[in-house]
Amino acid sequence: MEQKTRLEKQMNFLMEMDKSKNIMRQTYLANGERRENDAEHSWHLAIMCLLLGEYANENIDLLKTVTMVLFHDVIEIDAGDTYAYDTKGNETKAERENIAAKRLYSMLPEDQGAKLAALWEEFEKGETPEAKFARTLDRVQPLALNNASGGRSWKEHKITKEQVYQRNQQTHLGSEVLWEYAKALIERNAEEGKLL
Amino acid sequence: MEQKTRLEKQMNFLMEMDKSKNIMRQTYLANGERRENDAEHSWHLAIMCLLLGEYANENIDLLKTVTMVLFHDVIEIDAGDTYAYDTKGNETKAERENIAAKRLYSMLPEDQGAKLAALWEEFEKGETPEAKFARTLDRVQPLALNNASGGRSWKEHKITKEQVYQRNQQTHLGSEVLWEYAKALIERNAEEGKLL
Repeated sequence: MEQKTRLEKQMNFLMEMDKSKNIMRQTYLANGERRENDAEHSWHLAIMCLLLGEYANENIDLLKTVTMVLFHDVIEIDAGDTYAYDTKGNETKAERENIAAKRLYSMLPEDQGAKLAALWEEFEKGETPEAKFARTLDRVQPLALNNASGGRSWKEHKITKEQVYQRNQQTHLGSEVLWEYAKALIERNAEEGKLL
Repeated sequence: MEQKTRLEKQMNFLMEMDKSKNIMRQTYLANGERRENDAEHSWHLAIMCLLLGEYANENIDLLKTVTMVLFHDVIEIDAGDTYAYDTKGNETKAERENIAAKRLYSMLPEDQGAKLAALWEEFEKGETPEAKFARTLDRVQPLALNNASGGRSWKEHKITKEQVYQRNQQTHLGSEVLWEYAKALIERNAEEGKLL
């Protein structure tokens, strides 16, 4: 009976998570045809983490980092996606997301909910090796997609090269190698006029 | 230079992986509004793996199992999704998927490509504790989504309860607990007429 209640809580939470598939981001898919959603984005970060973990500046626990990226955006089920370059939205982001984390993680058995809530807070703070690397991936992935789609979301929002550098001030903290790669992408796209 | 070539191969592969977001499955999202794609499905299996791993019949290596489910369907980028109940399609599935695995994994540095190809073969064979559990998740997730959407894809394809049991003959191998849960879902949906 105890186990059944535990499993039911877990399955209810996992079905609630399905809503991530309908939370749309501003970034377009590589083919430029439609926007990406949070579930797709998180899957992409997870496979990047597995293949690019070797470039982390510090030793990272891969399972912890993959878990972090798989769940890092689920609070947007309630809080919505806040575009990186939306100044107003970013003022209220933390409060909206904290309320969301409380509701969502309280659906889980206490041990698992507490663990995921702590992991999300660790990601947000960005101080541990795992959080630094996860945040670097979270910056590099949309850069790579924007590059692939011909800068589609940058053009739509009239984003400048300076804004992208501003947004990426800490990207080097997780991986100098990936930041070098990302800088080259930014410069190339600026030269080609895909970034203002 | 060596490192740059390695990273470029990895990034090209990771951008090729973006196509998983356009490979559509037959299963509908929990809200029944549209079909699910492979990237979303794989993300869902990965978070299920992290939260439900405690129900595996045998001890499993969580990082290995999460890696397995994150990549288990990427061969469909070339081979397409073969519906579980499509008899004709399933006759040619293995050959199409083997060709796809060769092309896709050869995009990666040799060590990583070989490792992922081996992991996919391990998943297909379903003999290790990790593969058995991953395959159980791959069966239980669409059952849970079909249950949530009122049996939408079952109804569309006129699927019978017997077909679902046939499809799930090995689901218990990964987790008796999850199979008990799944059986209860099947019986309830059959009683309610969502399964013929």
